[in-house]
Amino acid sequence: MTGALEDGSGQGAMAIITLTTDFGLTDEYVGVMKGVILGIDPAARIVDVTHGIDAQDVVQAAYIVAAALPFFPSGSIHAVVVDPGVGTDRAILCLERCGQTVLAPDNGVLSLLLDVCEGACLRRVENPALRRPEVSRTFHGRDIIAPAAAHLSRGAAASELGPVLDPRSAVRIAPLGPAARGSEILGAVIQVDRFGNLTTDIDLSTLRKAGAFRAGRTVTVSLGQTAVTGLCGTYAEKAAGELLALVGSRGYLEIAVNSGSAAEACAARKGDGVRVRIHRR
Amino acid sequence: MTGALEDGSGQGAMAIITLTTDFGLTDEYVGVMKGVILGIDPAARIVDVTHGIDAQDVVQAAYIVAAALPFFPSGSIHAVVVDPGVGTDRAILCLERCGQTVLAPDNGVLSLLLDVCEGACLRRVENPALRRPEVSRTFHGRDIIAPAAAHLSRGAAASELGPVLDPRSAVRIAPLGPAARGSEILGAVIQVDRFGNLTTDIDLSTLRKAGAFRAGRTVTVSLGQTAVTGLCGTYAEKAAGELLALVGSRGYLEIAVNSGSAAEACAARKGDGVRVRIHRR
Amino acid sequence: MTGALEDGSGQGAMAIITLTTDFGLTDEYVGVMKGVILGIDPAARIVDVTHGIDAQDVVQAAYIVAAALPFFPSGSIHAVVVDPGVGTDRAILCLERCGQTVLAPDNGVLSLLLDVCEGACLRRVENPALRRPEVSRTFHGRDIIAPAAAHLSRGAAASELGPVLDPRSAVRIAPLGPAARGSEILGAVIQVDRFGNLTTDIDLSTLRKAGAFRAGRTVTVSLGQTAVTGLCGTYAEKAAGELLALVGSRGYLEIAVNSGSAAEACAARKGDGVRVRIHRR
Repeated sequence: MTGALEDGSGQGAMAIITLTTDFGLTDEYVGVMKGVILGIDPAARIVDVTHGIDAQDVVQAAYIVAAALPFFPSGSIHAVVVDPGVGTDRAILCLERCGQTVLAPDNGVLSLLLDVCEGACLRRVENPALRRPEVSRTFHGRDIIAPAAAHLSRGAAASELGPVLDPRSAVRIAPLGPAARGSEILGAVIQVDRFGNLTTDIDLSTLRKAGAFRAGRTVTVSLGQTAVTGLCGTYAEKAAGELLALVGSRGYLEIAVNSGSAAEACAARKGDGVRVRIHRR
Repeated sequence: MTGALEDGSGQGAMAIITLTTDFGLTDEYVGVMKGVILGIDPAARIVDVTHGIDAQDVVQAAYIVAAALPFFPSGSIHAVVVDPGVGTDRAILCLERCGQTVLAPDNGVLSLLLDVCEGACLRRVENPALRRPEVSRTFHGRDIIAPAAAHLSRGAAASELGPVLDPRSAVRIAPLGPAARGSEILGAVIQVDRFGNLTTDIDLSTLRKAGAFRAGRTVTVSLGQTAVTGLCGTYAEKAAGELLALVGSRGYLEIAVNSGSAAEACAARKGDGVRVRIHRR
Repeated sequence: MTGALEDGSGQGAMAIITLTTDFGLTDEYVGVMKGVILGIDPAARIVDVTHGIDAQDVVQAAYIVAAALPFFPSGSIHAVVVDPGVGTDRAILCLERCGQTVLAPDNGVLSLLLDVCEGACLRRVENPALRRPEVSRTFHGRDIIAPAAAHLSRGAAASELGPVLDPRSAVRIAPLGPAARGSEILGAVIQVDRFGNLTTDIDLSTLRKAGAFRAGRTVTVSLGQTAVTGLCGTYAEKAAGELLALVGSRGYLEIAVNSGSAAEACAARKGDGVRVRIHRR
């Protein structure tokens, strides 16, 4: 079987193709992408990361994809379709990094992935032989990205997709990530999850560098009129209904309410500013 | 492996069974259908087309299924469960067409598929040996359609399901499709997608026959108080927030707003009438 | 292939792992669990039962899981992640029953499954070698339950997960199930489905024991100000828009409206009390 993963035991398995889109699941768009993939590589293993990215929210998609990738095995191929510029001359990119491959429009959605791995290789996807024969101007996820993913999983080399690009030429979201100034960090809510937990763009490493975990120190997290002091390890450390802050399972600072919704409690929305102050206990 | 597809390379693969329903994903109904399928054919490859058909909307399902099928490989088996008449004496149909097989209730959901392919074969699904041993009166998707799909993917012949029917005896949705009168086409919105794009029932071939693409001609698309002249190739041809019309990726006339929602801009809903007038530029 | 099911025909197949959670599909949490599973067992077959359990609703999850399990083949492994106590010292359980295995937090979600099968075996999941190397305190679905399921499907024995527990020590939901007093049964709405059907906790066997199906008897089902007499076999037995009661496809008493929503018609919500009175026709 071409393109198959082989694990240590010699057990063959299918390549994994993940899908992350803003298509939702009400329409047939995601199903159709899967049909196209299986028409090219009938052995592909397709996994939905999420199709619930807010419509055309490239920044949210960048964070969600960066949070999800480390949990997929080496060899996985990730197709990301959040594509407000579909049909224009924006490129489609193929990024090989950390043993995985990511396909996405050149609109900043790869911003958090471009500088992390040594030996990463960025390409422009342009080989007409690895697309659908007829390419629409409104659905490149179906006509370019899905076929490219399927050809890769069948065994095509990334080099067949198109020429190498300088990563510095790729579109970046700016300003991205939190701003740390001394003992203060300014960030924003990037997503409200189903439980009403507020995920911010303030990551563990920024908190650590700013001294949040040094002996004798603690943090106060402020969002609008609300503030909470100290970081919890899990939701149930506070009583039901109480607000708390913790580093969530995605690796980002999260504001939550045990057995409740922080989004409701704080009347907070995506994009709201979050301020972390590090101080003596 | 029985029922397996074989591609040119001699690489074996599992049969594809797609599911299209109005069940949504909040309940366990879709998961249970998959359990039933895998209990009969553990090697089946199951793909969700969508479970977001509006509840019991047979017309919408007919269009979505017709739009999705061409993107699936030959040999695919499509189970369609939008079934307001479940438990009554309406038949379950099996339609072989264009190298694929479709299973669905006889309620009009196959209307757009019955006359397209030469050599199509319609059957009534009635073999009790290819159902669940106990058939409920409220969930034939689980008890009849899912098992039939799984038996087909395992290698049963369609002829084992039941006797051939005259396609003219099948229930049809009427009136279906747009009405073209000279240089005017009257249609309707059949679906509002997640982005607020309005898909109509006016397809590319109707537009072409009415002369929409002849030299020196253009179109004006009207919906309620709103009208837009000219067809775009993609959303980003208009400025953000501007209304446009195009032939969407489904092959139907679509009304959209670049980086916005046409449903909101036009205060439009499913079922609203759409008028296309073809005239000199 | 280790951990594979073998059916009678000698046809190999992958183990089935089902997922039931309250995560919804907007976030990437479910996708990440699948990445973890496939990283351990690349051949696992993953099926979503539902991710639409109401947030942290252990009672609803208990009923949905009990309703879904019988439709999955022997050998299936079911991961249930509705886990308000994540990160506390509540145990993770592994229940082998009726030829299937269920993994879930010890919070009552297994209540309906613990006493049904002879030869059932309950264990505490605690082997650190069968978890992710780093276990968060906020996402045990990803870090403990998904890896345990994947190791089982790869061929690990349940006994490797941890020591046997007395089923009587497991947390139970109480009071659970309907209360029958002579010819009267008191229950509650446990779920409102996508169609507005109201599923109650009153199951077929309770109705039977109370005499609902005895010759000359019928039932009156009351919910708030509404009452309906007689049980239908299917929705279409009543005219469109009319209220009816039936034993639904899940095996529980259901209140529905043909081609409409009982939730709207009765202004009913999850948790509302339902009263069944059995009387002479």
